[in-house]
Amino acid sequence: MRRFIDLADFNRDQILDLLALARALQDKPEPRALAGKILGLVFLNPSLRTLASFQAGMARLGGSSFVITPGQGTWQLETHLNAIMNGAAAEHIREGIPVLASYCDALGVRAFADGRSLNEDLREPLFEMIDGLCDKPLINMESAMNHPCQALADWRTMDELKVPARAKFVLSWVYHPKALPLAVPAAAVQMAAMRGMEVVVLRPDGFAMPPQIMDKARLAAASAGGSVTETGDRAAAMAGASVLYAKEWGTTLYYGDTEADSRLRADLSQWCVRESWFTGALPDAKLMHCLPVRRNVAVADEVLDGPRAVVKREAFNRLTVQMAVLHRMLA
Amino acid sequence: MRRFIDLADFNRDQILDLLALARALQDKPEPRALAGKILGLVFLNPSLRTLASFQAGMARLGGSSFVITPGQGTWQLETHLNAIMNGAAAEHIREGIPVLASYCDALGVRAFADGRSLNEDLREPLFEMIDGLCDKPLINMESAMNHPCQALADWRTMDELKVPARAKFVLSWVYHPKALPLAVPAAAVQMAAMRGMEVVVLRPDGFAMPPQIMDKARLAAASAGGSVTETGDRAAAMAGASVLYAKEWGTTLYYGDTEADSRLRADLSQWCVRESWFTGALPDAKLMHCLPVRRNVAVADEVLDGPRAVVKREAFNRLTVQMAVLHRMLA
Amino acid sequence: MRRFIDLADFNRDQILDLLALARALQDKPEPRALAGKILGLVFLNPSLRTLASFQAGMARLGGSSFVITPGQGTWQLETHLNAIMNGAAAEHIREGIPVLASYCDALGVRAFADGRSLNEDLREPLFEMIDGLCDKPLINMESAMNHPCQALADWRTMDELKVPARAKFVLSWVYHPKALPLAVPAAAVQMAAMRGMEVVVLRPDGFAMPPQIMDKARLAAASAGGSVTETGDRAAAMAGASVLYAKEWGTTLYYGDTEADSRLRADLSQWCVRESWFTGALPDAKLMHCLPVRRNVAVADEVLDGPRAVVKREAFNRLTVQMAVLHRMLA
Repeated sequence: MRRFIDLADFNRDQILDLLALARALQDKPEPRALAGKILGLVFLNPSLRTLASFQAGMARLGGSSFVITPGQGTWQLETHLNAIMNGAAAEHIREGIPVLASYCDALGVRAFADGRSLNEDLREPLFEMIDGLCDKPLINMESAMNHPCQALADWRTMDELKVPARAKFVLSWVYHPKALPLAVPAAAVQMAAMRGMEVVVLRPDGFAMPPQIMDKARLAAASAGGSVTETGDRAAAMAGASVLYAKEWGTTLYYGDTEADSRLRADLSQWCVRESWFTGALPDAKLMHCLPVRRNVAVADEVLDGPRAVVKREAFNRLTVQMAVLHRMLA
Repeated sequence: MRRFIDLADFNRDQILDLLALARALQDKPEPRALAGKILGLVFLNPSLRTLASFQAGMARLGGSSFVITPGQGTWQLETHLNAIMNGAAAEHIREGIPVLASYCDALGVRAFADGRSLNEDLREPLFEMIDGLCDKPLINMESAMNHPCQALADWRTMDELKVPARAKFVLSWVYHPKALPLAVPAAAVQMAAMRGMEVVVLRPDGFAMPPQIMDKARLAAASAGGSVTETGDRAAAMAGASVLYAKEWGTTLYYGDTEADSRLRADLSQWCVRESWFTGALPDAKLMHCLPVRRNVAVADEVLDGPRAVVKREAFNRLTVQMAVLHRMLA
Repeated sequence: MRRFIDLADFNRDQILDLLALARALQDKPEPRALAGKILGLVFLNPSLRTLASFQAGMARLGGSSFVITPGQGTWQLETHLNAIMNGAAAEHIREGIPVLASYCDALGVRAFADGRSLNEDLREPLFEMIDGLCDKPLINMESAMNHPCQALADWRTMDELKVPARAKFVLSWVYHPKALPLAVPAAAVQMAAMRGMEVVVLRPDGFAMPPQIMDKARLAAASAGGSVTETGDRAAAMAGASVLYAKEWGTTLYYGDTEADSRLRADLSQWCVRESWFTGALPDAKLMHCLPVRRNVAVADEVLDGPRAVVKREAFNRLTVQMAVLHRMLA
């Protein structure tokens, strides 16, 4: 495997194979599998789980890693083609990425959405550029519209919890003080669709998932035997749900317009998941979230501290599935 | 060993045993003892020695480590229970700590005092919460009122220098532009008391050690054959002293009141250790300090650059004693 | 080898020997050569290549490393002797450097020029102090006036490209929004002179290389069979050139005077390398640069993206030559 950029680049069997490898590496560790291998980690945006779990994963497989955080001890990186670089950025990714790739055996890159044009961000121009600049195996550690490592960890978590493939998976918008990117919700919808689930996107007006993301997920659902729909009706969405996947994201109607986004979300602070949301769901319905989660803003303590929350297992599975990806790429 | 949080959690024999292990590992390295083991290091506050020596110690034992510094490339962490997280912190330690613990075999955490209520900080509510959240071995890399790694390194340094167990150990307040936490002085008093020394706390008015810390140390002193007293009289304190342990800390009388603290210390800039302080001490009396030290503010160049100063040996012993702790936890 | 601070500290045969070792380690990796060894990396200034390549180099040789970045998760370090430390810096390098050295087997330090007095910076007072404080092998990762790792990587790159030892090497000043240090241009001139090249420094008025640097390089050139001259005439400089080494630096005429420097460079934005600069050069003349490079400010896209640019190979060779240095110091 040379690229791990989008779950949709793989067919269902390849994903199941990766998940099996994750389980196998957990049951039977291979502490020397990546001896001498080096993973470079480039964070254009903040991280906690990704930063820790990739380093831990390489170490558990006998390899090592280095971390580059542009703007913190390292030059800020310019990402625009043909830029006249007389501003804050001292280095262009056209030099930075190939140089870092030349020092390591695989590169992980985190590069959030630009956040100004939805159509532009949906094209993933930055990650595509990085892809073209990297002649080593490359891992998407969250791009403008994707987060395949999170999606794979979530898939594995549902398998562990024995959530049936055909179960109802509700991705719900939740409140956050400001607009966050679409990477995780987009990846979650795609993952649940590929898993064959009955996917419902629940969100207030102005926050619909972009049609391109829904259409892509519907294609996957069609092949896997599931479905993908969207609604603003919480009761209908939650009826019979096995999973509530809570996530914050910015307006798609006025994408990139901070003021419009603020106006839209001003009245939406009640979109904080409480136990009452689960009325109508299956009795043992689970609460998933990719973390970090703002307690009592996006999800209430009563849910995060109760038996429904499986957020820590999802986070732990970042480690296990990423070890499978690294193993497939480098062993 | 599952916890290394407070020297007082161990009896004297257990400490002597750890010190013996530190010496043994130095004499006869075990470069594969922790092969495959991973240490997670979480710094809610700045560090130099701790950051470098824990990574070096793991590497010298064949293990590896990762570093998380909230606010620098990582989300700021909320630490208050029931917080409504609509401010700067994107993640709560209730998620952050268990998740990071799940990636590693042992966790070290640094979390300084809140600095508002003395009684509250003495209860160590934050570190206690972290303790409860971490299901892996946990190391206190400095908490509100404790720094057991520093204390253990200081004990070993005095052993190496053949400072007698019954020698006079003077912990003296020294000047600093602002109030610093009580963690190191509290740990130093406890350590010297457990070692059986004649402990004298020398400090100006308004900077007395809290009774809780003194009483706890006196209990240890009683069992070890030493004593713990407090004074503002430098000549009396230094008479016959073997060790002057210099440390900066904030007012305990007006704890958390920055203005009162500033007023109190305004006239105390002469509390900068000079060679003249050692008049009356034993001829080869030593100057100890946990570092970092502000030269010519807390301690004068003439002392730091002279034969009394053993501060670099103390710092080196951070490495040796922490390797013993890690070995006991993980080997 | 205990010190790698200045190429001029070595004779030509010693350098050729290091370059041969770099080649040998690339052809025949030694993944256990530095097993158990620890490299400490201290960055008083930002870095990308150095930060990544030293960590990767240690890992490729089986060792490990830790990184200290004062001011970012670590105390700011005071560097002046006899300072009364009542400002921002909490720790002096007189403690910081020996303590960090005590944790590792070799130390790399980056410490840029103070930038106020040319004669002072030419004396390298800070790096000389660090040298005196470090009792472990020490590597200069860029000091006030030197960058031997970059110079050695550049030498190797020219060897790989079969640039003849007697070829014409033009170091040209190029535009940058502000004054940068002299470390790289000084090291490049010294390197090319030691390699026996016909070295020409091309620069606008006010940016002449300091005589001390030119004289030292001329001494090396005399012994190696080359020459070192200086000019403001681009056509004359580029005539017959094999290499254009582009670099930004601050005024030497009004060294440390930011306003004078700004005035001088205000009209120099045309000193951005374009393909037209190579008229008169050898047909396959190369563009070298140490990176980071500001595209379309210092060097135009048309050159960086064309066949002349070998900047990524130079950067990769940072890894290969540093592995040779580390091997010589620690194996």
